[in-house]
Amino acid sequence: MNLTFKSDMDVELVDHMGSDESIVQAARVSTAGATAPIQGNSTSAGLINFLMRDRHGTPFEHNSLTFRVRAPLFVMYEWHRHRAGWSYNEESARYRELEPVFYVPAADRNLRQLGKPGAYTFEPGTEDQQDLSTQYHREAAFASWGMYQSALKNGIAREVSRNLLPVSIYKTMYATCNLRSLFSFLSLRWAHPLSSVPTFPLREIEMVAEKLDGSAREHFPVAFEKFDENGRVAP
Amino acid sequence: MNLTFKSDMDVELVDHMGSDESIVQAARVSTAGATAPIQGNSTSAGLINFLMRDRHGTPFEHNSLTFRVRAPLFVMYEWHRHRAGWSYNEESARYRELEPVFYVPAADRNLRQLGKPGAYTFEPGTEDQQDLSTQYHREAAFASWGMYQSALKNGIAREVSRNLLPVSIYKTMYATCNLRSLFSFLSLRWAHPLSSVPTFPLREIEMVAEKLDGSAREHFPVAFEKFDENGRVAP
Amino acid sequence: MNLTFKSDMDVELVDHMGSDESIVQAARVSTAGATAPIQGNSTSAGLINFLMRDRHGTPFEHNSLTFRVRAPLFVMYEWHRHRAGWSYNEESARYRELEPVFYVPAADRNLRQLGKPGAYTFEPGTEDQQDLSTQYHREAAFASWGMYQSALKNGIAREVSRNLLPVSIYKTMYATCNLRSLFSFLSLRWAHPLSSVPTFPLREIEMVAEKLDGSAREHFPVAFEKFDENGRVAP
Amino acid sequence: MNLTFKSDMDVELVDHMGSDESIVQAARVSTAGATAPIQGNSTSAGLINFLMRDRHGTPFEHNSLTFRVRAPLFVMYEWHRHRAGWSYNEESARYRELEPVFYVPAADRNLRQLGKPGAYTFEPGTEDQQDLSTQYHREAAFASWGMYQSALKNGIAREVSRNLLPVSIYKTMYATCNLRSLFSFLSLRWAHPLSSVPTFPLREIEMVAEKLDGSAREHFPVAFEKFDENGRVAP
Repeated sequence: MNLTFKSDMDVELVDHMGSDESIVQAARVSTAGATAPIQGNSTSAGLINFLMRDRHGTPFEHNSLTFRVRAPLFVMYEWHRHRAGWSYNEESARYRELEPVFYVPAADRNLRQLGKPGAYTFEPGTEDQQDLSTQYHREAAFASWGMYQSALKNGIAREVSRNLLPVSIYKTMYATCNLRSLFSFLSLRWAHPLSSVPTFPLREIEMVAEKLDGSAREHFPVAFEKFDENGRVAP
Repeated sequence: MNLTFKSDMDVELVDHMGSDESIVQAARVSTAGATAPIQGNSTSAGLINFLMRDRHGTPFEHNSLTFRVRAPLFVMYEWHRHRAGWSYNEESARYRELEPVFYVPAADRNLRQLGKPGAYTFEPGTEDQQDLSTQYHREAAFASWGMYQSALKNGIAREVSRNLLPVSIYKTMYATCNLRSLFSFLSLRWAHPLSSVPTFPLREIEMVAEKLDGSAREHFPVAFEKFDENGRVAP
Repeated sequence: MNLTFKSDMDVELVDHMGSDESIVQAARVSTAGATAPIQGNSTSAGLINFLMRDRHGTPFEHNSLTFRVRAPLFVMYEWHRHRAGWSYNEESARYRELEPVFYVPAADRNLRQLGKPGAYTFEPGTEDQQDLSTQYHREAAFASWGMYQSALKNGIAREVSRNLLPVSIYKTMYATCNLRSLFSFLSLRWAHPLSSVPTFPLREIEMVAEKLDGSAREHFPVAFEKFDENGRVAP
Repeated sequence: MNLTFKSDMDVELVDHMGSDESIVQAARVSTAGATAPIQGNSTSAGLINFLMRDRHGTPFEHNSLTFRVRAPLFVMYEWHRHRAGWSYNEESARYRELEPVFYVPAADRNLRQLGKPGAYTFEPGTEDQQDLSTQYHREAAFASWGMYQSALKNGIAREVSRNLLPVSIYKTMYATCNLRSLFSFLSLRWAHPLSSVPTFPLREIEMVAEKLDGSAREHFPVAFEKFDENGRVAP
C-alpha cells in the first residue's frame, strides 16, 4: 500500500474581496450617509483602531475570503463548530473514495498533557513516546486503509467502508468567511503572544490558524495590525 | 425648506467576488477532493441545475456581493429581518444629521388593499386617492422636517430629534450577502411570475429586489438562469 | 383624537427554558460524556465562572427566553440588527392598523449631546429644551396620526398610510433568545458600571436592556452574577 | 478488552419550551399587536397550516428543544454542518478519555450503493458482504482501541491518542434547536414518503432524524401534522 503521511496543514487563499479601504468605507456610511464617496477614500488607521477597540464589528463583514484547506478530519471537526459567518464545502466520503493521506505528529508536537481541564499545559514527549506515537499513527493508517480498500473491492458502499477510517485522515475543504468571523476564529484557535484573553487551542487547529492569518493579513494589513494591538479579540 | 421627494430605490453593486465557476468549484470538492483543479474549470450548467433543484445550498455561499442602497427607512426595517448570510452597515441618525429625502409613492403604486390577511391583492388608487396620498406624504415630510431642524437648532441631540421623522425618510446602507442568502431574499421579496411559491411582498422592497437581481445576475448568469427555471426557491 | 404618550418600555418574560443547572449540564458533557447525569447536578458556580471568563460560550446556549416587548419603532430598528441567536415576530403595519401610542422622552432623558463621534456624552436639557422636545414629539404624533387616520378612511392601504407615521410610534414584538445572545445584547446595549468594555448605547434601548436583565436574572442567578463579575462581556 | 458495539442511535428530549399555542401566539402578534392575549389562545390548525404553506417561518422559532444524543462521530460530523438555529455541546476527546462504544451496521443497513452522484440508491448486502462489514467494523474498533489505550498508558496526551480512533466511535452531545431549524434538519435528513423534495440522507443520520421527529412531535402535534401535509419542507 502506498500511503502518504503528512504533519502539516495546507492553506491557500483562492479568492478574496475587500481591503482596509472597504472597512473604512462601510464604517463611514454611518456618519456620512449617501454623501460618503464610494472610491478614493484613504485608509484611516485611526478609524480602524477605534472600530476594533470599541467592538464595532459590522464594518469588518463587508469583505470575503475563500480558502482551500487540506487538514485532518479531526481539525475539520472542530472548525465546523464555527457557525456564524462561515461557509463550508468539503470532500465527501459518501461521494468519492478518499485518498490515503494521514496525519502523523511532527517531532515538535508536544505529546504530554499536564494539569487539569481548563488549565492544561503541554510538554514534549520523550523519545520513546515520540516513537510510539509515530508507530501507532502509521499502524492505524495502514490497518484501516487495508480494510477500507478491501471493503470497497468487495462492493461495500463508500459511505459504510469509510466508518473504518481514523480521524487522522486528511480531507479537503473550501471555507469562506469574512474578516470578522476570521478574527473570531483566530482569537479562539491561536494562543498568540499578543492575545489578551486566554485560550488553549488544539495544536493542529492552531497550525491552520497561523496559515489563515498569514494568507489574509497582506490584504488587510491595517486591520490585522489593529487586531494585534488590541489583544486579538474579535470586534 | 428644500426637500427632495423620490419614488424609486437606488441599488449599486460596489464589489463582488465569485462567479458561476466558483459555484462549480466548491461543489466539485465534494466529489473530487484535493484533486479538483483550482482554476480552469468549465462552467457546468447541468451541475448548477442539479444543485439548485436538489437543495444543495452551500456551494452558492462561496462568493460575496456588496451593495450600496438608498431606500426608505421602512424598507430597511423589513430588510434587516434577514439574518443569515447578510451584513449591514447603515447611516446612523445618532451620528449624523439625516438628509431631507423622502419617499412619495409613484402614480403606478397600487393604493387599495383588498382581501384578508395572507391573501391580499392590491389595485390602483383613484385619482383622488393618489392626490391625497401625495399630499399627505409631502405634508408629513415638511411638517416633521421643520420640527427636526428646529429641534437641532435648539440644541436637542440628533438621536432625540430624529424621533420626529416619519418612516418614509431615505437612508443609505451597505449590505453584503452571498448568492444563497440573496436567492432567499429574492424568493420572499419578489412575487415573480416564475415563482413556484406564493409570496406577497411590500411593493417597495420588491422594487429593491428587482434591482438586486438586475445587478447581480450578470456576474452569475447560469446560477440565476437555474434559479428562474427551478421556481425561484433558494437552494 | 385620543393618543397615548409613553416614556417607558414594556418587557415581559412570557416563557423560558433552562437554568444555571442546565448550563453546568451542557458543559459537563464535554468532560463526562454519556456518564454525565441528566438530573440532580448541583450548580457549580466555579464552573460557570470558568466558562464565562475563558469564553466558553456554547454551554450558555441550551436555554431559551421569550419576551413580549412594547417599545418605539426606533428601538426595534436597532434591536433587529442582532442576528445570531435571536428570533423575532413583530406587529405588522401591513396587516393591521397600528395603535396611537407614541414615545415622548421623560424629564430625565438627557437631551444634549456633547463631544464627537465615538466619544459622545449626554447632559440634561434645559427647561426650554425639555418643553420644546415634549411639544414636538406630541405635535409630530398628532399631525401624523390625523393624516394616517384620514388616509385609511379614504381607502388607502395600511401599508401605504403608515409611511406617514414617525419612528416614535410604539410596536409590539415577541423576541426569543438564549442566554449567550442575551449577554451579547446586554454587553452592547447597557453602559453598566461593571462593564469592562466601553459602549455608548441609545438611552431607550438601554432602558429595554435594563428590563431584560431584570426579567431573566432570577432564572439564571449564578450566570448573571458571573457575567457581572467578569466585566459583562458575552462569553 | 471490553468493547461495546451498537447499531442504533440514542435520542432523548431532555427539555423543551413552547407548544402549538406559542406558534399561534407569535404569529398573531403580527395582526393583533399589543391586544393579542398572552394566554388562553386556542390552537388554530388553519393558521399553522397557512404559516407552513406560505413559508412564514419565524413563528416556529419561539420555542426550544434540547436533545441528548449518542451517535457515531461520523453522524455528529454531518450534524454540525447545520449552523442556523442549532447549538451544540459535545463530549471532548481532548478533555476526557472516550468510552469504547463503536458502531457496527445492523443486518438491515443497506450496503451496496448503485447509481451515480446525486442519484444513488442502496440495496441490501449479500451475506458475505454483511459478514465482511461486521468483521471489519469490529477489527477496526479492537485494533484502534488497543493502540489508544496503550498510547494513553504510555503518557501520550488524550488529544493525540484519539487520532488513532475511527469515525465509528460513539460520542455524546447536547443539541438545542427550535422547531424551524428542526424542520430544516428533518427535511434534509429523512427521505420520508411524504417529502415533496428529493433528499438522499446517510442512513445513520436518518435514524437520528426519525427519533428527533418522534420525540418532538408530541409537544407540537399540529405543527408536525401540517409539516407532513405540506411536503415536509421547512417554512
